[in-house]
Amino acid sequence: MVRIGILGASGYIGGELLRLLLQHPEVEVTAASSRRYAGEYVFRVHPNLRGMTELQFSPNDASKVIAGSDLVFAALPHGESVKIVPQIADAGLRVVDLSADFRLSDRGQYPNWYGYDHPRADLLEKFVYSIPEINREKVKGATLVSSPGCMAITAILALAPLLKEKSLGIDRDHIIVDAKVGSSGAGGKPSLATHFSERFNVVRPYKPAGHRHSAEVEQVLEAMAGEKVKVSMSAHAVNMVRGILVTSHVFTAGAVKPIDVWKAYRSMYTGSYFVRLVRDKNGPFRLPDPKLVIGSNFCDVGFEIEERTGRLVALSATDNLVKGAAGNAIQSMNLMLGFDEKTGLAMAPLHPV
Amino acid sequence: MVRIGILGASGYIGGELLRLLLQHPEVEVTAASSRRYAGEYVFRVHPNLRGMTELQFSPNDASKVIAGSDLVFAALPHGESVKIVPQIADAGLRVVDLSADFRLSDRGQYPNWYGYDHPRADLLEKFVYSIPEINREKVKGATLVSSPGCMAITAILALAPLLKEKSLGIDRDHIIVDAKVGSSGAGGKPSLATHFSERFNVVRPYKPAGHRHSAEVEQVLEAMAGEKVKVSMSAHAVNMVRGILVTSHVFTAGAVKPIDVWKAYRSMYTGSYFVRLVRDKNGPFRLPDPKLVIGSNFCDVGFEIEERTGRLVALSATDNLVKGAAGNAIQSMNLMLGFDEKTGLAMAPLHPV
Amino acid sequence: MVRIGILGASGYIGGELLRLLLQHPEVEVTAASSRRYAGEYVFRVHPNLRGMTELQFSPNDASKVIAGSDLVFAALPHGESVKIVPQIADAGLRVVDLSADFRLSDRGQYPNWYGYDHPRADLLEKFVYSIPEINREKVKGATLVSSPGCMAITAILALAPLLKEKSLGIDRDHIIVDAKVGSSGAGGKPSLATHFSERFNVVRPYKPAGHRHSAEVEQVLEAMAGEKVKVSMSAHAVNMVRGILVTSHVFTAGAVKPIDVWKAYRSMYTGSYFVRLVRDKNGPFRLPDPKLVIGSNFCDVGFEIEERTGRLVALSATDNLVKGAAGNAIQSMNLMLGFDEKTGLAMAPLHPV
Amino acid sequence: MVRIGILGASGYIGGELLRLLLQHPEVEVTAASSRRYAGEYVFRVHPNLRGMTELQFSPNDASKVIAGSDLVFAALPHGESVKIVPQIADAGLRVVDLSADFRLSDRGQYPNWYGYDHPRADLLEKFVYSIPEINREKVKGATLVSSPGCMAITAILALAPLLKEKSLGIDRDHIIVDAKVGSSGAGGKPSLATHFSERFNVVRPYKPAGHRHSAEVEQVLEAMAGEKVKVSMSAHAVNMVRGILVTSHVFTAGAVKPIDVWKAYRSMYTGSYFVRLVRDKNGPFRLPDPKLVIGSNFCDVGFEIEERTGRLVALSATDNLVKGAAGNAIQSMNLMLGFDEKTGLAMAPLHPV
Repeated sequence: MVRIGILGASGYIGGELLRLLLQHPEVEVTAASSRRYAGEYVFRVHPNLRGMTELQFSPNDASKVIAGSDLVFAALPHGESVKIVPQIADAGLRVVDLSADFRLSDRGQYPNWYGYDHPRADLLEKFVYSIPEINREKVKGATLVSSPGCMAITAILALAPLLKEKSLGIDRDHIIVDAKVGSSGAGGKPSLATHFSERFNVVRPYKPAGHRHSAEVEQVLEAMAGEKVKVSMSAHAVNMVRGILVTSHVFTAGAVKPIDVWKAYRSMYTGSYFVRLVRDKNGPFRLPDPKLVIGSNFCDVGFEIEERTGRLVALSATDNLVKGAAGNAIQSMNLMLGFDEKTGLAMAPLHPV
Repeated sequence: MVRIGILGASGYIGGELLRLLLQHPEVEVTAASSRRYAGEYVFRVHPNLRGMTELQFSPNDASKVIAGSDLVFAALPHGESVKIVPQIADAGLRVVDLSADFRLSDRGQYPNWYGYDHPRADLLEKFVYSIPEINREKVKGATLVSSPGCMAITAILALAPLLKEKSLGIDRDHIIVDAKVGSSGAGGKPSLATHFSERFNVVRPYKPAGHRHSAEVEQVLEAMAGEKVKVSMSAHAVNMVRGILVTSHVFTAGAVKPIDVWKAYRSMYTGSYFVRLVRDKNGPFRLPDPKLVIGSNFCDVGFEIEERTGRLVALSATDNLVKGAAGNAIQSMNLMLGFDEKTGLAMAPLHPV
Repeated sequence: MVRIGILGASGYIGGELLRLLLQHPEVEVTAASSRRYAGEYVFRVHPNLRGMTELQFSPNDASKVIAGSDLVFAALPHGESVKIVPQIADAGLRVVDLSADFRLSDRGQYPNWYGYDHPRADLLEKFVYSIPEINREKVKGATLVSSPGCMAITAILALAPLLKEKSLGIDRDHIIVDAKVGSSGAGGKPSLATHFSERFNVVRPYKPAGHRHSAEVEQVLEAMAGEKVKVSMSAHAVNMVRGILVTSHVFTAGAVKPIDVWKAYRSMYTGSYFVRLVRDKNGPFRLPDPKLVIGSNFCDVGFEIEERTGRLVALSATDNLVKGAAGNAIQSMNLMLGFDEKTGLAMAPLHPV
Repeated sequence: MVRIGILGASGYIGGELLRLLLQHPEVEVTAASSRRYAGEYVFRVHPNLRGMTELQFSPNDASKVIAGSDLVFAALPHGESVKIVPQIADAGLRVVDLSADFRLSDRGQYPNWYGYDHPRADLLEKFVYSIPEINREKVKGATLVSSPGCMAITAILALAPLLKEKSLGIDRDHIIVDAKVGSSGAGGKPSLATHFSERFNVVRPYKPAGHRHSAEVEQVLEAMAGEKVKVSMSAHAVNMVRGILVTSHVFTAGAVKPIDVWKAYRSMYTGSYFVRLVRDKNGPFRLPDPKLVIGSNFCDVGFEIEERTGRLVALSATDNLVKGAAGNAIQSMNLMLGFDEKTGLAMAPLHPV
């Protein structure tokens, strides 16, 4: 059994890592750290796990985690991860980091988007930004992996094949990413904005411009296109806990047919179990909807074409805590450790829920 | 008291007309028709009105409605209204039509968007497409009025001032209207798509391209711009009953400052009680959100600028059954009849709800 | 215009008093106090009121409120009201208190239920516990009024007529009050328990035994029955913001017929506009449901009889912020000031919402 | 691999059986029948299963199912199951029936509760009503098993130990079962009552008296108590899709201490993985709440004592589609086939969701 440590295990992403890893057949969770809840039983904070584990939170102490683990997941806030993960990486352990601290390969981007100078440009080069459906082989060989933001991965899985396929003629200056997200993406800290009476029933445009995930989306799309790309992202909070729908509006140089778009998606995703192409003729399930992936590691991708305006609307849906976070991280771990990438992740979504 | 007839009074828009008109101080509802529920008490279908009216539904019989009314609201489905409203108009009664059948002034558009040849081009010329905040004077003089679709009016109130203000340099080819709507806009007819277990928790892209409301939005925006405009609309069903948020993504020729956008909005909306400009510095209420207009005739409008990508994000929120339908229709009626436009409509939104 | 002061105007009940009183034709709000938000615009805290008032919160300063008001609503927390209200009462102003501090006439109950010794037993005698449908005449003559708790008034309106009608033979030892309440009843203060991700989708038994509202319900029911009554109350938080359903399970000595129960209800509520008796033969609206009273001052009451077990199930539904709090308080004010009790309160519920 | 046939596989319980059995390591689903969807791909009806199975629905044809299966789950409506299951039982196959048609051992109860004369009293004797936590040994030896109704099993798991433990002195004439249930328990058929706009935000008392599940609850509790028991059940629809909370109000002869209740529960449930006793000192997770079992086979059980009124409030929560239906049925199958009862069922609940 591979020994797993989790840093920042009391947040929602930490809880999801625990839920999935406690049932993973090839690993054993040896440490789950939390600054705030050190000493507390895990199931008091993650009540779903009551009766399933007697684990207690340990402090966020790198040296202890290093001693007891073979691979470490870091689910710490941005700016915190960069303070502790280098020590673990330097000790030679495998790391899967779920913060933004190792996602951008260009050190110069950190002051702009995250407000700090990155202290370890050398590590930025070594971390692989992991979306197995896009760069599976690189992940297999990696010891240090950075897992994307939930909106970013959802947008990228819909857009990367379109940007890669030059014949579609995607206008790289007018790429709109309009995201609708559940509350769990915002974490577990109470505030007026998350107070139930204020948060219920909203469609709240909480970040209509300047969203940080734009940076990682552009980084990947530029790699696909081989050219500069501008991504215009807007994020809205909607009335649910789990799930993201990303509606990507792009424009094509000329007329585009469904078969052309299909080809772009299939050429990238054939053999990728966790991306489902969804485009039925009719019915309420004919296009991606986060409701239909809840609890699973699937990303559903679909599209529609509007000839009249030259627009291609790409749609993608994930459970933000699974494929949008913990699931993609564990899928990456599976590849790093030589397991089948589906190990411990092949559960079906719940429906209805 | 002005005598009011309502055709199609058993639907959700009909119910909202009843809720508002039964409490309007200057009018009296003399007929509420319904093909399906003729003879039934109104409060059996609109249970909120129990104890407030002993009215019964009458059949959809134009001649009877004509005999007993001074002004008629038609809340019939598209394609049905056009069969009965001409008779009422020809009889010289005032009409406020809430269907799409008299919204487009260009007869040639009906086959494209609604699949039928319009039989009365003469009436299309006479009907005023009414958004009082935009064409109040024309509505005052009208006897025949067409009230906009809920997504259309919400989008138009955010976009019209921007297109009118030429100095903003809005790119007329890349106007994205991404709408998030509650279930009540889809009406009261049960189906698998509206079955609670299937509809709860969705972010369902039910019309990502080709939405019919595009036509009316383009019609108004072209009048504002004095030039051709292309509107790319996508509609999503979200997990709530009432409310619409429209996120409009547009691009500007050069750099634009907040003060410039403010000016455009103020020059159009100063003096218009029902449009509220919402752009606070912080807090969960700093931008429009349908939660904050529920039960009222307000349309909240706000915006953000993304310099990096040259994007202006305009946000607008309405209660789709009030300012998005019955409220705007009654506001139009108030103007047609010479009342203050706020009469019977100045109720505050509910909060929290 | 009667001048109205509101103490504790920044909470949800304070907001609802403002929403209703700003539109009340006979009064004028001259002060809205808040310890926390003194100096802030009211519409920053109650965003629904944006554009409807330029009022700012004042400090909770009794002497200033006394100087500028004819009648004061106190919407302060339990234990706070008792510190400031006596001063206002002693100054001879009319008071409507919405806390529990003046609800129980027996001073001896305060240590048990609220954990403090009541300092002003003399005032407890003078305050009228006001449910106009039950003691309208007493309220008319009162200058000091205490308005019930939201669960209490909802339960009482279903149970009082049953206890009063001796021929029904209600078993006074087995009265179960099972309440299901929206989040707004718990106020506006964020916590882990009210954090959206934790509060959404719950049916949380937050007070299954020992609920404080038991005391006021027993007080009223004992007055009705003329004998000791034991009320067993349980409160559950459900997935909505507004509304309460109370399911009261009682047992009858012998067989009871619907007509007998009807009579009990009608003999108490005939002429009371705000109580609607709801018991249709079929359809989804056949029994009380808080969804159908949202935004209104109605309390819907209905029942079913289970012969096999000798049980009578009484059902009652209110909007907890209106008839459950601010609406009932304003209805009481109307009576105290000699207005029609419906003044400013006759708005229809929203449907659907 | 044991070959499994599912009759009535297109409903929500059928879908949940498929979700769980497709991932069960010891069985293989060989047939999934549906009268309505015969010939259709399973994933068109259960969109969560897209990409996970190429199975198509077959007709509800008993002889074919018999030929290809070793064990059959029948998830048919009441009254339908009794027409087809006897044929399968007579053919010697193992059966797990999820309808009410074989739940009551007393043939005389069927006309009262289900409106038909039961044609096969001989089978009623052979079917074991299966709640493994209560009668595990009987289930192990059974070939014909009947799985309880979702409200019934949830109520029984909270009440059975209390009725069995005579020293608690439970009053058998005043047992109130107040259930709050999600929409999925009502199945997948659209109607006005389940139309999203009408069903959202409700607390609807849809069956306040005379609920059919009373019969099975009484049957089990009488077996526990060895005496007559009267159960007074009320069912409410609340604003969620999955989950049931049952609040059981019972009265005790004398004073009861928490330790006594603990003992009753522990003596029945020690060793039963799927019942979790939940009674923390504080926090939002201190008592059972369906939110905390969603997606799992757990039933959480807790309680509070109200000395003042002599009341004991027992609380129990399940996912109605899992422990309330498909999960309990598969747990029963595991026992019948000699597998560990947890096989394929040990997944953690989702949290938050």
